[in-house]
Amino acid sequence: MQPILDYLAANEPRFVSELCDYVRFPSVSAQSNHSGDVRACAEWLASHCTSIGLTAEVHKTPGNPVVVARTARARGKRRPHFLVYGHYDVQPPEPLELWKTPPFEPTVVGRKLFGRGASDNKGQNLAHLKAVESYLKTGTELPCDLTFVIEGEEEVGSKSLAGFLKANRRTLACDAVVISDTGIPSLKHPALTYGLRGIAALEVRVDGPSRDLHSGIYGGSLDNPAWVLCQLLGGLRDARGRVTIPGFYQGVEPLSRFERRQLARLPFSEVAYRKFLGVPKLSGESGFTPIEQRSARPTLEINGLTSGYQGQGSKTIVPAWASAKITMRLVPGQLPQKVLQYAVAHLKKLCPPTVRLTVERGHCGDPYLVSPSSEMAQAGLRALQAAFQRPPLLMREGGSIPIVNDFKRILGVDTLLLGLALPDDNLHSPNEKFDLDSFALGSRMSALLWPELTAAVGK
Amino acid sequence: MQPILDYLAANEPRFVSELCDYVRFPSVSAQSNHSGDVRACAEWLASHCTSIGLTAEVHKTPGNPVVVARTARARGKRRPHFLVYGHYDVQPPEPLELWKTPPFEPTVVGRKLFGRGASDNKGQNLAHLKAVESYLKTGTELPCDLTFVIEGEEEVGSKSLAGFLKANRRTLACDAVVISDTGIPSLKHPALTYGLRGIAALEVRVDGPSRDLHSGIYGGSLDNPAWVLCQLLGGLRDARGRVTIPGFYQGVEPLSRFERRQLARLPFSEVAYRKFLGVPKLSGESGFTPIEQRSARPTLEINGLTSGYQGQGSKTIVPAWASAKITMRLVPGQLPQKVLQYAVAHLKKLCPPTVRLTVERGHCGDPYLVSPSSEMAQAGLRALQAAFQRPPLLMREGGSIPIVNDFKRILGVDTLLLGLALPDDNLHSPNEKFDLDSFALGSRMSALLWPELTAAVGK
Repeated sequence: MQPILDYLAANEPRFVSELCDYVRFPSVSAQSNHSGDVRACAEWLASHCTSIGLTAEVHKTPGNPVVVARTARARGKRRPHFLVYGHYDVQPPEPLELWKTPPFEPTVVGRKLFGRGASDNKGQNLAHLKAVESYLKTGTELPCDLTFVIEGEEEVGSKSLAGFLKANRRTLACDAVVISDTGIPSLKHPALTYGLRGIAALEVRVDGPSRDLHSGIYGGSLDNPAWVLCQLLGGLRDARGRVTIPGFYQGVEPLSRFERRQLARLPFSEVAYRKFLGVPKLSGESGFTPIEQRSARPTLEINGLTSGYQGQGSKTIVPAWASAKITMRLVPGQLPQKVLQYAVAHLKKLCPPTVRLTVERGHCGDPYLVSPSSEMAQAGLRALQAAFQRPPLLMREGGSIPIVNDFKRILGVDTLLLGLALPDDNLHSPNEKFDLDSFALGSRMSALLWPELTAAVGK
Repeated sequence: MQPILDYLAANEPRFVSELCDYVRFPSVSAQSNHSGDVRACAEWLASHCTSIGLTAEVHKTPGNPVVVARTARARGKRRPHFLVYGHYDVQPPEPLELWKTPPFEPTVVGRKLFGRGASDNKGQNLAHLKAVESYLKTGTELPCDLTFVIEGEEEVGSKSLAGFLKANRRTLACDAVVISDTGIPSLKHPALTYGLRGIAALEVRVDGPSRDLHSGIYGGSLDNPAWVLCQLLGGLRDARGRVTIPGFYQGVEPLSRFERRQLARLPFSEVAYRKFLGVPKLSGESGFTPIEQRSARPTLEINGLTSGYQGQGSKTIVPAWASAKITMRLVPGQLPQKVLQYAVAHLKKLCPPTVRLTVERGHCGDPYLVSPSSEMAQAGLRALQAAFQRPPLLMREGGSIPIVNDFKRILGVDTLLLGLALPDDNLHSPNEKFDLDSFALGSRMSALLWPELTAAVGK
């Protein structure tokens, strides 16, 4: 491996300059005036892939194109095939006035490269491309076949990706997917993310009188929908912070001692976390640490409340209706549609006959888990250890990454989440940056990963 | 009294035509483009008062003028003095497209006079003026002195009235105030309103994290302000529909058997009321009838809820804050400021340390009660009986009429509420009308009232 690592070290300044070229494209998928920039970025990326020795094409979709780049297949040999997913589109840069340097004029300060998309996700997918380049340019044989799938709609919901995967199921058939689009606690704490929470959304609406009524004239003789809503929602958790919907915890796999030990290794300061959130005191399901609560335990959150008069001053009404938006974060073992069904049944059972209740089911996303003791996970951990020279941690993310479920559903394979973003990378915020050490270590990790993964597939 | 009653009957067609003249003024106090019309209406009213034999003046205030009209004081005699309050300003007529006849082109259909302000309050105060006219034009001596105070800002909060009362405390010193600006169930059910509910408003705000947080990344490890708000508010009533704030019911006078019997005489159909409200089932404090619940018992109502994301679709956040607007309707014996204090203390006690609670106190209004067995109330009931030829009912109103407390506070006198509006008068709505029978019977009632009230003051 030494020639590869030497190549990565020797060419780092050029890699940074190439990352600047990449970041310079304002490939904002949410803003239609940038559709030309999105296309230009895809073209640049494909030609960059070609320049490092890959076969690349800009693949049309009903939305923004997907850049597909492949290594040359070894003749007559059936080798393991891995897919590297990334995205070249970026979040809108607004509010512009909060940027210290222009978002699309990449600026290096010390070991930080500032610019929209530097970390999310251009820097992270370029790190993988640079690793492959180091194989190809040093004449080192790759132990496996690789296909890069870098899409242009991740920031707007990856609407064309599932269709693309289905249409190309045969050529994309692979042994696993690798994604670097998550975070790690610090460069001293490289980590593998082995679990993601799922999601189930619903909207609750309580209808009372046919119009807002004068609270003086009628108040007291009919039920108040806002009050009913508060009582329904207020009762959805108990004093221990547990969700009271019968069946909610059905199938939830208990955290193993191994997992809890791993999660406890993540750096965490309660005081700093509390200050970061801006709350006077942390709160959550009792018997679990904050890290467990936010990543490995299911929750219910009220995302919004609406009822009656919300303007200045007061308006003396019994409001005609009240509504709430709710999302539940689910963990492996829970079935989103089942949980929604339990929630609807519970709310209907509790609702008094004095109002009309409507519960609308929203979107669902499955939770995701790759066993941290699987051969694949172990391979990822070894690559992290070798690249960062630190014992890697095992993490779970509290959010959902729906494409991971697309890969599982359509291609039937697991995903290794090997994120390179740092907590202060300002993802989706002004002054986004990518750490150049993370870029360099990430390239090393990727280079070291392919032999490890290939070996794991063989086992 | 016969010449007076004959005069009223004989001149009715002219009275209706005068009411049309009065209603023709678009004296909309809420709309500044009508300030000329408001002034013209006041001038017309004053000159009308002069034409029937009163001394009238248009009294300037910082807002719209007050029309003050007096009967000639009897020489050397100290007679009882009563004040008749009314207002010549009207609600805006919008939405215009829902009117079947133009709001300021009064139209008589059968025994109904349609037009904005016909019932609220021009027809009702003109009925009292016509009663006085019948004394003056028939040469019948009035048993008392009368002063009409007809203001032009009732529909925008009577902002100038208290100052006017204070500045003219001496000339307005009187034995009682008579107001016809409330309603009765039907012409077969004349009624005296002897009680009004008071009010106490507050706004509750729960602050959690310093900004909306990603519910996937952080949810579960901090408290959700919307959920805390729901739990706080949800707990403010018990299964019997009683408010759980300690001290809330302090001072509430129990309903006497006499009062309950009187309230039970009011015409009421539960089915029709439920349909009118548009609710599947009525609801309220157990042990009380709907009429008692909405007029004679204290209540708490949530008037509005605000938190987080309220747009289309879903947004997966833990909202930074949640707030609610609340008003409590209070009955005689309750002190609004005390009740607010109890509510604040209770909410503070219940609020968990995981969020910050702010409770802002809003406006207050005292409840009002004139004993239905007082000499004054009895006098009013006798006048109603004689005019309507039906046994009058005793009512309470669930709303508040703040000026009644101004009269009590500034002039130290009680108010008799002898409303003439019918439930289908469309007050504040399109197609407002005044019933011409109510107009005629109201004039008779007013004519018959002064001897009764004078006798009551003597007792």
